[in-house]
Amino acid sequence: MEKPYAIGIDIGGTNTVFGVVDKRGQIIEQGTIKTGKHSEVNAYMDDLVKNLQIIIDKVGGTANIKGVGVGAPNGNFFTGCIEFAPNLPWKGVIPLAQMLTDRLGIPASLTNDANAAAIGEMTYGAARGMKDFIVITLGTGVGSGIVVNGQLVYGHDGFAGELGHTTIRRQNGRLCGCGKHGCLETYASATGVARTAREYLETTKDASVLRNLDPKEITSKDVFDAAQSGDALAKKIFEETGSILGEAFADFISFSSPEAIILFGGLTKAGNLIFDPVRKSMEENLLPIFRNKVKLLHSELKESDAAVLGASALGWEVKDL
Amino acid sequence: MEKPYAIGIDIGGTNTVFGVVDKRGQIIEQGTIKTGKHSEVNAYMDDLVKNLQIIIDKVGGTANIKGVGVGAPNGNFFTGCIEFAPNLPWKGVIPLAQMLTDRLGIPASLTNDANAAAIGEMTYGAARGMKDFIVITLGTGVGSGIVVNGQLVYGHDGFAGELGHTTIRRQNGRLCGCGKHGCLETYASATGVARTAREYLETTKDASVLRNLDPKEITSKDVFDAAQSGDALAKKIFEETGSILGEAFADFISFSSPEAIILFGGLTKAGNLIFDPVRKSMEENLLPIFRNKVKLLHSELKESDAAVLGASALGWEVKDL
Repeated sequence: MEKPYAIGIDIGGTNTVFGVVDKRGQIIEQGTIKTGKHSEVNAYMDDLVKNLQIIIDKVGGTANIKGVGVGAPNGNFFTGCIEFAPNLPWKGVIPLAQMLTDRLGIPASLTNDANAAAIGEMTYGAARGMKDFIVITLGTGVGSGIVVNGQLVYGHDGFAGELGHTTIRRQNGRLCGCGKHGCLETYASATGVARTAREYLETTKDASVLRNLDPKEITSKDVFDAAQSGDALAKKIFEETGSILGEAFADFISFSSPEAIILFGGLTKAGNLIFDPVRKSMEENLLPIFRNKVKLLHSELKESDAAVLGASALGWEVKDL
Repeated sequence: MEKPYAIGIDIGGTNTVFGVVDKRGQIIEQGTIKTGKHSEVNAYMDDLVKNLQIIIDKVGGTANIKGVGVGAPNGNFFTGCIEFAPNLPWKGVIPLAQMLTDRLGIPASLTNDANAAAIGEMTYGAARGMKDFIVITLGTGVGSGIVVNGQLVYGHDGFAGELGHTTIRRQNGRLCGCGKHGCLETYASATGVARTAREYLETTKDASVLRNLDPKEITSKDVFDAAQSGDALAKKIFEETGSILGEAFADFISFSSPEAIILFGGLTKAGNLIFDPVRKSMEENLLPIFRNKVKLLHSELKESDAAVLGASALGWEVKDL
């Protein structure tokens, strides 16, 4: 009999969330532990496995679980290791997939968060039935998961799909956390929007409710609220952000000619404030043969469930032990 | 018994060259006809098939041919059609693969020239054994063939891999034949090199043997000859061209993390004049996780044979009738 469930685990800097998921993408059981509580990875694994075992037992034991998928920062699909993740408490290379497999007796597989999101959209979400698409995650940073020919693009070393670090501004580009200048992430993430807001407030005299805030404390949420209430400067900030994203998307399309680009994450809550300028700028910058062909879609995964769903989608694909 | 030969056909604006190729990439028989002679595609096909039949008979007839691969401008792998190719005499959509299959009784498949070059490198050349690489053709324009996971990237519509039309200069970018501004092709092709030469001659006072030429007539070959003879301005032009290519490659690597980027075509004859600045600029612009990992290679296909070899590589992969 086919095993009815997969487990998805999303490891973030603060929390680790996990769940048992069925084939239709319903989360049947779930739980969470604090990632940061354990500075030693074996203690973390003990805590995680103890809590996983509880929900595994609730759904009839390991015999009912096809596989475990994990989404984690710097997760390498090929090696099953988390490699030098700056936001996690464990340093160096952590063979996480193997540690889980050994302790649970269930095959486990690992990738980074954005790749997990892409597999999640393909399995349960907006990309069902698509063989070529790109998921762009617009959160604190800009992540990406690329699917070509029905397969996730991992590249020869497992690190493909770093579209947030392609260069969108080559002159006077903003300094990025990666050490480069002008990365897409420095403009088109939540922090990029806040940065643009501070720049506009400094370099223009335009009236704006954002001037009532401490510039250092401005967040993308503040800019969104201001834009919603009709603030012209705040709307301009979203237009500029969307326009830059659209320029970048036009180049991504020249690479893999996807059926759709699917947007996921905090910034997408801005809806048409961001989608409209993205679409306009993308079409303007596209090579003629690609125009009016590529869908720009919202993720169809509920944000609170998406990380676990995405990771669980990887769990369906693992090889049996 | 396995069929020992494949046929490769390369359709260019001036000539159509074709050959019978064995599994080791040896061209056993070959021929050529004038593409431009036939303004009507059926007359062209009659001429082509008549000439193909001669070499097919020489190698023992159609029973010995596994398949026919065709490389052509605007060739769409999915539809088998040449679609609106500006440099060919036949307008609109030409169902070329089907026409060949019908006339020869051998299955035929079609793609564009750069994709054929990529399959050629994978089958017989520098990419043997690689599953992730990018071929960049540096000729009159800049073409590309991308391989991910051992498969050519066609995208959802068959038109993926237009890396020559990604935007490398967003401010005051050069006007491209495609209608956009700042495309990589306007800087890093043979015509781009000539354009850079004209710009440098106009905007600087630097001494150069290139000043003895009519600026309108300068070619990349002139710049190469000048650089070879030690001309400082000519060397600077190649450095600038290589540097721009390296910037672009760094972004391509963030996309698909290839094992190698393979350079093919006329400009690569400049050797280290172009390879050295490409390598330097590529490494400087790479995200740290990709540094010192990606090989920059010369094509291993002899240029005069490459087009037929590349197309023939597609011939091995066609489905039997």
